[in-house]
Amino acid sequence: MKTPSPFRSTAQLMMVTLMLAMTAVAQVQAKAASRVTEFTLGNGMQMVVVPDKRAPVVTHMVWYRVGAADEPKGVSGIAHFLEHLMFKSTDKIPMGEFSKIVAKLGGQDNAFTGHDVTSYFQRISKDRLETVMGMEADRMVNLRLTEKEVLTERDVILEERRSRIENNPSAILDEQMDAALYYSHPYGIPVIGWEHEMAKLTQADAMSFYKRYYAPNNAILVVAGDVEANEVKALAEKTYGKIPATPNAVRDPRPQDPPHRTARRLVLKDPRAGKASFHRDYVAPSYTTARPGEAEALDILMKIAADGPTSRLYKKLVIEEQLASSAGGGYYGSGLDGTKISLYAVTADGVSLEKVETAVDATLDEIIKNGVTAAELERAKNGYIAEYVYDNDNQNNMARRYGWSLAVGRTVKQIESWPDDIAKVTLEDVKKAAAQYLDQRRSVTGLLIPEAPNATEQAVKPAAPANRS
Amino acid sequence: MKTPSPFRSTAQLMMVTLMLAMTAVAQVQAKAASRVTEFTLGNGMQMVVVPDKRAPVVTHMVWYRVGAADEPKGVSGIAHFLEHLMFKSTDKIPMGEFSKIVAKLGGQDNAFTGHDVTSYFQRISKDRLETVMGMEADRMVNLRLTEKEVLTERDVILEERRSRIENNPSAILDEQMDAALYYSHPYGIPVIGWEHEMAKLTQADAMSFYKRYYAPNNAILVVAGDVEANEVKALAEKTYGKIPATPNAVRDPRPQDPPHRTARRLVLKDPRAGKASFHRDYVAPSYTTARPGEAEALDILMKIAADGPTSRLYKKLVIEEQLASSAGGGYYGSGLDGTKISLYAVTADGVSLEKVETAVDATLDEIIKNGVTAAELERAKNGYIAEYVYDNDNQNNMARRYGWSLAVGRTVKQIESWPDDIAKVTLEDVKKAAAQYLDQRRSVTGLLIPEAPNATEQAVKPAAPANRS
Repeated sequence: MKTPSPFRSTAQLMMVTLMLAMTAVAQVQAKAASRVTEFTLGNGMQMVVVPDKRAPVVTHMVWYRVGAADEPKGVSGIAHFLEHLMFKSTDKIPMGEFSKIVAKLGGQDNAFTGHDVTSYFQRISKDRLETVMGMEADRMVNLRLTEKEVLTERDVILEERRSRIENNPSAILDEQMDAALYYSHPYGIPVIGWEHEMAKLTQADAMSFYKRYYAPNNAILVVAGDVEANEVKALAEKTYGKIPATPNAVRDPRPQDPPHRTARRLVLKDPRAGKASFHRDYVAPSYTTARPGEAEALDILMKIAADGPTSRLYKKLVIEEQLASSAGGGYYGSGLDGTKISLYAVTADGVSLEKVETAVDATLDEIIKNGVTAAELERAKNGYIAEYVYDNDNQNNMARRYGWSLAVGRTVKQIESWPDDIAKVTLEDVKKAAAQYLDQRRSVTGLLIPEAPNATEQAVKPAAPANRS
Repeated sequence: MKTPSPFRSTAQLMMVTLMLAMTAVAQVQAKAASRVTEFTLGNGMQMVVVPDKRAPVVTHMVWYRVGAADEPKGVSGIAHFLEHLMFKSTDKIPMGEFSKIVAKLGGQDNAFTGHDVTSYFQRISKDRLETVMGMEADRMVNLRLTEKEVLTERDVILEERRSRIENNPSAILDEQMDAALYYSHPYGIPVIGWEHEMAKLTQADAMSFYKRYYAPNNAILVVAGDVEANEVKALAEKTYGKIPATPNAVRDPRPQDPPHRTARRLVLKDPRAGKASFHRDYVAPSYTTARPGEAEALDILMKIAADGPTSRLYKKLVIEEQLASSAGGGYYGSGLDGTKISLYAVTADGVSLEKVETAVDATLDEIIKNGVTAAELERAKNGYIAEYVYDNDNQNNMARRYGWSLAVGRTVKQIESWPDDIAKVTLEDVKKAAAQYLDQRRSVTGLLIPEAPNATEQAVKPAAPANRS
């Protein structure tokens, strides 16, 4: 996808989207009855209509229940590559005209690929909804590719990888950490793909992935905006409803990791890195995989521990001890097969990574041992409520909240009971989640150091174990 | 496989076999013309006959070009499980009688599963060769399983995993290190399988793997012993030759890793560990993947660096500095998709792992900077020649040498030119190989510490980077 749009580049969009996803769960309706209408077409396509009458516009999003973690072995990057190729042509849409047509209609469009989901969306005036539904339904089954366009677009994704990953030491470190964090699960493989595999992606790879997964029975339509559910239903039946279901469109289970039993760590030395920084990821259950209440406790825990200038981490490292110029982290609850907790701290001038890491661990240990305070718990709950109320003002975010969560197996009821579930989290729940999931055996620690790599030097000094001589 | 035999347990056999494999490459014929006869049956089955007339016995080995690294995603352990199930029954062999029949004929039999190969072998008097060929050909295509036997045997492999891996902290550490060493390649998944996936293996999984890969066009027969090639050929045509080739029996390429760019490390604390020990693995090219001369240089390098009491590592750590009670390592050149270099050192009483690691790295740095000496090079070459001459006395090892190497894509000519190729290695080749492949960014360092794990403590202290405060 070449059009310059803030979300057109996947790596950037992924970051934005992860941040949104983190709060998306918080953005559900409170106790009021659901405003949304759900129905399913005869071919199995799931539909959600979210009323939002403040302006005569609609957000039209199709979510496929497939992402990079569903790629065949050795074909990394094909989910995202296909997302690019979906903007090429069909029998009705001339080559490269999809986004131009949407723009001529006064709309905006974009797409996103994650490990678990792929989505395509347009924001457009309500009277154009039928047109974009027709266009989206058309490219669900009628995509046309030529070898030449595929090769040209492959150069685009390779350049995207170079600019988003290879030119960004933090992104390289993230890839290395993910690769070390997961033993078997494809979350260890980057969404954009490994370069050597991207360079070999073919038209056949793209069409095979498309034919398997792009089908109405593997898709969710979310329409948010100034439109009635019965209108959407009528339009959907005229467009998506005409597409037959595809047997076998539903993804296979992915390989799951065995228990994570050793703390792992790695160092990336890169002269472009800026200040030395500390990073840590832990595997954690997601809203889809957690026991009841556990994901909510993790959300609360990480808001208190690491979210923003009032967090424990920021207060200790940046304000009180002045060891770090910034520090933060979060819990990303939207994964289909679990997710991770992430933390980071950027060293202040003249401070060693060792001191920073010791302070981070002391901060976490304090929570593990003594939990958080009732005031912190209250403030965290109120913070999430404020965020979701605020976020209800954003049509795009509302559509994304439902689409993403439904695509990873949650229900509208679960999504909308989230504020109640957050309200139920206790101090004990938070302490228990900290003790269970801030276990370093579940983690990878990454250090980013602004130096030229020295091939043979020892990257990290060894442990200082008990039997020190 | 329940019969108590020294090679009956796969984990044990794997260790033995890796050691053999390391030297196997060294065990080829010198300048003399090849003693072996090669031919191929009409169905594509490759045959090698190795004469050995010292006793009226033969070693009969079938090698399949498939192993654990060819398993479908999420079905880890199926290659090894199938190897067990191959001893169950066919229409001709009653349940569990295969090995008993071989034993009644005065022979011994066994089998082995690795990441790249699976082999089945019998050692038996020469007049029984036709019988075991018939039995092996029979179970290549006529395996019969029942759900009950499959479930019983699944308990056997789960128990094997418990005894060989879970009761052995070094084996647990090895698994963790492999999982961290490989980013995408299935060499990161243990041959025996992850326990949670083994527990779900089914008869259908086993039969699917069997039907796909067990076929004459995906097999190599090696017969070593007191037998003429024309006799073997006649018998093979009567047995294996009757089996039709299977389309698609040849394995697909595995996903290859991207460049390894960060030194990784991990700690396993286990009160059963004995003395604290240091371990390091580096990814390296194998004889199949290396540029000409490179694998030979790695063999020489690691013999000098780490093989036995005259190695640099042993002399420095154990004899001179008395930091370690043992130390060693090697290069395992037989991998289809590359391989690894491994090093270890066990701490002496009262010595810290930090001191041991520093000494290991100093030993390697010295070789990287100054290379090895002409005397060391000469001694290493002579050592390999002595080993292969010695090893030619072992019929089983000779058969294994040819079978394994052929199964990972080498030719008889390459196998037999190995002494010449080793003789060509120069001091410069060794220094270059050390500089290129003893790069810590290609490595995982593992520390095994005899303590109870503390869930939240910091497993390894952080780096002491240049910007230390």
